[in-house]
Amino acid sequence: MATIKDIANKLGIATSTVSKGLNGANDISNELRQLVLDTAVEMGYTTKKMKKEANQKLCILIGNMEYESTGSFGYDIILGFKQMAISEKWDVDVVQVNSTIQAQDKYDTYMLKNGYSGAFFVGFEMHDDWILQLADTTVPTVLLDNYIKTNPLVGSISTDSFEGIDLAIDHLVSLGHSKIAFLNGSPNSTVSDERYRAFINSMEKHNLDIDYSLIEFGHYMSDCAKHHIPNFLEKKATAILCASDSIASGTITECQLRGLNVPEDISVIGFDDLPFAADLTPSLTTIHQDRAGLGKCAYFSLSGLLKNVYISNTTMRAKLIVRDSTGAVAK
Amino acid sequence: MATIKDIANKLGIATSTVSKGLNGANDISNELRQLVLDTAVEMGYTTKKMKKEANQKLCILIGNMEYESTGSFGYDIILGFKQMAISEKWDVDVVQVNSTIQAQDKYDTYMLKNGYSGAFFVGFEMHDDWILQLADTTVPTVLLDNYIKTNPLVGSISTDSFEGIDLAIDHLVSLGHSKIAFLNGSPNSTVSDERYRAFINSMEKHNLDIDYSLIEFGHYMSDCAKHHIPNFLEKKATAILCASDSIASGTITECQLRGLNVPEDISVIGFDDLPFAADLTPSLTTIHQDRAGLGKCAYFSLSGLLKNVYISNTTMRAKLIVRDSTGAVAK
Repeated sequence: MATIKDIANKLGIATSTVSKGLNGANDISNELRQLVLDTAVEMGYTTKKMKKEANQKLCILIGNMEYESTGSFGYDIILGFKQMAISEKWDVDVVQVNSTIQAQDKYDTYMLKNGYSGAFFVGFEMHDDWILQLADTTVPTVLLDNYIKTNPLVGSISTDSFEGIDLAIDHLVSLGHSKIAFLNGSPNSTVSDERYRAFINSMEKHNLDIDYSLIEFGHYMSDCAKHHIPNFLEKKATAILCASDSIASGTITECQLRGLNVPEDISVIGFDDLPFAADLTPSLTTIHQDRAGLGKCAYFSLSGLLKNVYISNTTMRAKLIVRDSTGAVAK
Repeated sequence: MATIKDIANKLGIATSTVSKGLNGANDISNELRQLVLDTAVEMGYTTKKMKKEANQKLCILIGNMEYESTGSFGYDIILGFKQMAISEKWDVDVVQVNSTIQAQDKYDTYMLKNGYSGAFFVGFEMHDDWILQLADTTVPTVLLDNYIKTNPLVGSISTDSFEGIDLAIDHLVSLGHSKIAFLNGSPNSTVSDERYRAFINSMEKHNLDIDYSLIEFGHYMSDCAKHHIPNFLEKKATAILCASDSIASGTITECQLRGLNVPEDISVIGFDDLPFAADLTPSLTTIHQDRAGLGKCAYFSLSGLLKNVYISNTTMRAKLIVRDSTGAVAK
């Protein structure tokens, strides 16, 4: 376990200041206190005070999503949630949930048995057993990127796809592109539906013709690109917007395999801004999701539901990170 | 100022239990403690402890909105915000802001001069001076029913118009209606735009023909009804959805003045569920906004922004309250 000295070294401050932050002293600023607490949580440090006061538990349930390595999609989301929750005296368990666990117990039973007051779901699909049970759950629950229509105890959080995709189309239009293809993620997912509507919406706002043969659903993995890129190239797309960085990575590879240079011959944009996006060749222009912020936002939403404030959808700001995979349309 | 005994009487519990709630004792439930605190705030009671620990200030800025009487739109919104904020040790000022105040100081200057860390705006219009300045503000700010595109420090909250209007159309369709008119609020307002899109969206989902001559913008007052109802009646609308309870109240009056019975000849639905809606003749079927919940939600959103979590849009659940102003379509 990390020590106070480890935290002090990481932040470049005195150990006495770290102690003040951990003990809630009033003679340091709120911002510094929060930073100390956040860093302590990140490094796995917990004070006796934290342990003693923490008497209620929340859980983060992980479906099909990478989260264990620092560069993975889920890592910062989980970290952000824990930072907020632990600073408000909650214990937080992170539990990987496969279909066997979902078959063993109903969701509400599982939560009750384990003493959890609320949950944050990440990486689930709409047809998963526990997701299907959320229409009737009595447990405050927040979902990343999915939405449950009927139950006010279930909230949703996501990055604002409309804002993000509009920034991407703005950028492409400023570079002279008009034949823009969209390689979406898996069909039957709330977030894919939203990104589809966001794409149509932004194309219309920019007065661009929508060619529906340039819009395809894939899935959220790089290898889906090979099934769709040949069609986009045949139809003379000059830019391809992808619903994730992984899809964009596969898209760049498929273009290069066909002798096309990115961005000279075709521009590619991703969605997520995972750490690997900056290391691709060319480095990827992408729509940034603030993953730690999503985790924190999930906590705010869940803490509202726990107080019977029926927060439904919450979106986080999106940002466009311009790198080398986009350029002026070829003459 | 209210006493502990007043709070005990209002809640029907012992004064000793009220004291425990106010002093954060552990031998009463969290829910009861919160209720005691909420009631204390509502009744204007503050403990010395509350006063001593409150060292930072937020403000609720009121534009053009009624909020002083218990049945008014703003009253519960302000109450909900204060209940959450004060239980987390913030002082909250409620300030009515007219155009003179907005002309005297820039928004950021005003906030700095008065020592406010953040603000919640209610009842403003997009062309108000301070709203126009929000594109560049450095002060965490949350708006009710308006949205600022460019600044991640400015968040928005609203009731989910899509959910609410879809529930209303569902209800009307179940009663056999298909010629449904929509009398919206003021044009050039984010919330009116959203309700317009929500209406179109729900009509399409229900496979109903959209007659654009049955969709009109008015403003958020009952007297706007007289300008629009004659057209709707001439076009044989069998139901009129209104963007507020006030508009619906005016609509019922206009229908009755023309010898039509509500709901036998024509159905009317409102939006808000203000206390007077239940007292209209006939009592009004309406889309309920949880006003105290909106205030609480605004606090959650603002407390995120104060921690640099860039929460953009947050929506609250809508509910349809069925009363006597809707009925089966006339044969």
